[in-house]
Amino acid sequence: MVLSPDPRPSLRVAVLGCGVVGTEVVRLLTTQADDLAARVGARLELVGVAVRDVDVERDPVVDRALLTADGTTLVEKADVVVEVMGGIEPARSLLLHAIEHGASVVTANKALLAQDGPTLYAAADAAGTDLYFEAAVAGAIPIVRPVRESLAGDHVRRVLGIVNGTTNYVLDRMTTEGLDLDQAVKEAQALGYAEADPTADVEGYDAAAKAAILASLAFHTRVGLDDVHREGITAVTADDVAWAQRTGHVIKLLAIAERGEDADGTSGVQVRVHPALIRADHPLAGVRGAFNAVFVEAEAAGELMFYGRGAGGVPTASAVLGDVVSVARHRVLGGRGPVESSYAALPVLPAAAARTRYQVRLEVADRPGVLAQVASALAEHDVSIEAVRQSPDGDATADPAVAHLVITTHTAPDASLRATVEAVAGLDVVRSIVSVLRVEGA
Amino acid sequence: MVLSPDPRPSLRVAVLGCGVVGTEVVRLLTTQADDLAARVGARLELVGVAVRDVDVERDPVVDRALLTADGTTLVEKADVVVEVMGGIEPARSLLLHAIEHGASVVTANKALLAQDGPTLYAAADAAGTDLYFEAAVAGAIPIVRPVRESLAGDHVRRVLGIVNGTTNYVLDRMTTEGLDLDQAVKEAQALGYAEADPTADVEGYDAAAKAAILASLAFHTRVGLDDVHREGITAVTADDVAWAQRTGHVIKLLAIAERGEDADGTSGVQVRVHPALIRADHPLAGVRGAFNAVFVEAEAAGELMFYGRGAGGVPTASAVLGDVVSVARHRVLGGRGPVESSYAALPVLPAAAARTRYQVRLEVADRPGVLAQVASALAEHDVSIEAVRQSPDGDATADPAVAHLVITTHTAPDASLRATVEAVAGLDVVRSIVSVLRVEGA
Repeated sequence: MVLSPDPRPSLRVAVLGCGVVGTEVVRLLTTQADDLAARVGARLELVGVAVRDVDVERDPVVDRALLTADGTTLVEKADVVVEVMGGIEPARSLLLHAIEHGASVVTANKALLAQDGPTLYAAADAAGTDLYFEAAVAGAIPIVRPVRESLAGDHVRRVLGIVNGTTNYVLDRMTTEGLDLDQAVKEAQALGYAEADPTADVEGYDAAAKAAILASLAFHTRVGLDDVHREGITAVTADDVAWAQRTGHVIKLLAIAERGEDADGTSGVQVRVHPALIRADHPLAGVRGAFNAVFVEAEAAGELMFYGRGAGGVPTASAVLGDVVSVARHRVLGGRGPVESSYAALPVLPAAAARTRYQVRLEVADRPGVLAQVASALAEHDVSIEAVRQSPDGDATADPAVAHLVITTHTAPDASLRATVEAVAGLDVVRSIVSVLRVEGA
Repeated sequence: MVLSPDPRPSLRVAVLGCGVVGTEVVRLLTTQADDLAARVGARLELVGVAVRDVDVERDPVVDRALLTADGTTLVEKADVVVEVMGGIEPARSLLLHAIEHGASVVTANKALLAQDGPTLYAAADAAGTDLYFEAAVAGAIPIVRPVRESLAGDHVRRVLGIVNGTTNYVLDRMTTEGLDLDQAVKEAQALGYAEADPTADVEGYDAAAKAAILASLAFHTRVGLDDVHREGITAVTADDVAWAQRTGHVIKLLAIAERGEDADGTSGVQVRVHPALIRADHPLAGVRGAFNAVFVEAEAAGELMFYGRGAGGVPTASAVLGDVVSVARHRVLGGRGPVESSYAALPVLPAAAARTRYQVRLEVADRPGVLAQVASALAEHDVSIEAVRQSPDGDATADPAVAHLVITTHTAPDASLRATVEAVAGLDVVRSIVSVLRVEGA
């Protein structure tokens, strides 16, 4: 092969962060340089990788000569800045600095976007530059681009997402193997799916950040992390999982963003993260292991689902590189990608306004008339019952005087359902409320 | 509300065709005008709808004053032309005319793109204008944009698609209700899922056009309709479906495009449409009814799946409008979307080069040594057996001297598998080859 100088222009790319994702981004930029050049119309020249400590041992794909601890100077000489360091600072300051210097930026930083996205969007707008973040939600799954662009002529009604692979793995193992939560979390830790401190995952913080971003995109409204009602999976028991299966459901940790109305009739959006039952034949029910999926209900498009790997260095790097190609093409050909669209400015409604269904398990006195009393309590709160089940056949409770009831309600505002459960708990014949879970996806 | 003149610029939109999709496009342009203006940054002004016969009765959402039989003149005065008339002519000439006049074009016409896409791409390139076609593959499902843009930094290895809703409905009814093919097709016709003449669907022509488009996008290589090996579902029997279930599979009509090598080691792409068994726990197996889904295996992103409605006026119109917003934004803000990317120019390999697995059902003489003879015939052709099953328990064949064998092979080139089946058919002990189906998705 005869080498000749490449006549195409080149673009300077800086990478901030060299952890698992950053290393894979560097690898793809290096090994796929020719393909990327063909797709962009210009060569992508890696001009530096900002790291905290340049002396740490790293994957040999990362040329040590490119490492620098001075991210500020690095972003000043880049056309495209890729931020994969995570955390709020110094990621935030470096991105703002890059934008002010006219660089196009790509970030995978969901925490930063959920906390301070509007500042970044406004800076990118003022500078007329691109801010892309496909990798910030559901890793490798193209969901940001479809929601921002493919559905731009449609109205999204609801988004239901399995956006945290750790908790999906844990709940899947509880479902398929009958493990309890602790066992499943330990297994996930052993496999590297869960951190030593699994709080961010199991308490739903990670999913809440993604829910805020998805809701903002889907409803053209600013939704911050504080707007998201959040419940983790720590209260989910092996018994809950078994009962879900008996009633034809599986339990998933869902990020839900939907249009709705509060009690006054105010129209807005409601965003929440919590474990919920979904029907076993719902497309989300089949999302196994550490996979993620986002189910979108739109007025015209109907039901859509996007499925894939939500985490991991290599899959996340794929999403980052897709964004890099897009923003780099804009630098070569002109134009800009979509900007933050918050024109709808819908109010964010409290969780109490969400319309949902409950599945309530309770222990009651095993004598005639109990079901009638419980049913009356529900009726008084305008909550109608879809189904009632007694203890499964042959499941002899320790105390023969105690029966086990599983009540699934029809749809009602969360506030009414909660009040109803409290009223039921106060009945003499009710020994205890064993669990309360929402049923979603109907 | 005080009406004031809208200070924003407006873009002129022409729609070619006013069938089911065209009517819904007009409806969305009309009813969502304010949202579209907010998303585009300019109002979209519908300047005309080209139809064959302006006197036909139509949905009242279509203003009769906008109808014209003169598509040529109409496209000359439009900034954005939406082609939803279908068929080759006059769609092709009108689109080329629109492109020559500098309009951005959006089309849902898979037949035209599969047959003559390169002419259109070249014209759009020469004119420096956008050619978008999200609705041409899998209706409302965003698949063109993710493959063209989100995966632009990755390498696709394989695409497996359920891209024809009619055949998926038919096969699903055969699976869940035990219907035979004719019954299921009649049911699909009664529900409007299948045409009076179902040939284009059941013989796989529709899926083949989509396979050609998907392969072109995924592999940056021009793939035409003639490059696609095509087999329909007309040979699939209720018995095939039942046996698939017994062996833990379902039968789907798959559009498959994958990287591969032929016998000489030439690397290329192989594109085919045929019914195939996939494991019951594969994400595509859960795609029910008339839904579509495209499963993508990429080097870095891993497994992705895109699921939704593949047809219907309203869902298709959603995909069209998403494209309209994208191309309209480019006219307002500058820039251009992705162009045809055929730089890889890979050879298209014949179906014989595909590496696949076979499940073969055969009737054999019920006597000792038969399985050994069949197994030897396979071994002679270097085809190894993954599993063998005999007639199911209690399934007494009419002739007690005849046994039923189901052989599933390991992966081998299609040509070897076909030669092997012929050799097995020639054995004395083999009464008949009942069916041969490929097994995909491993």
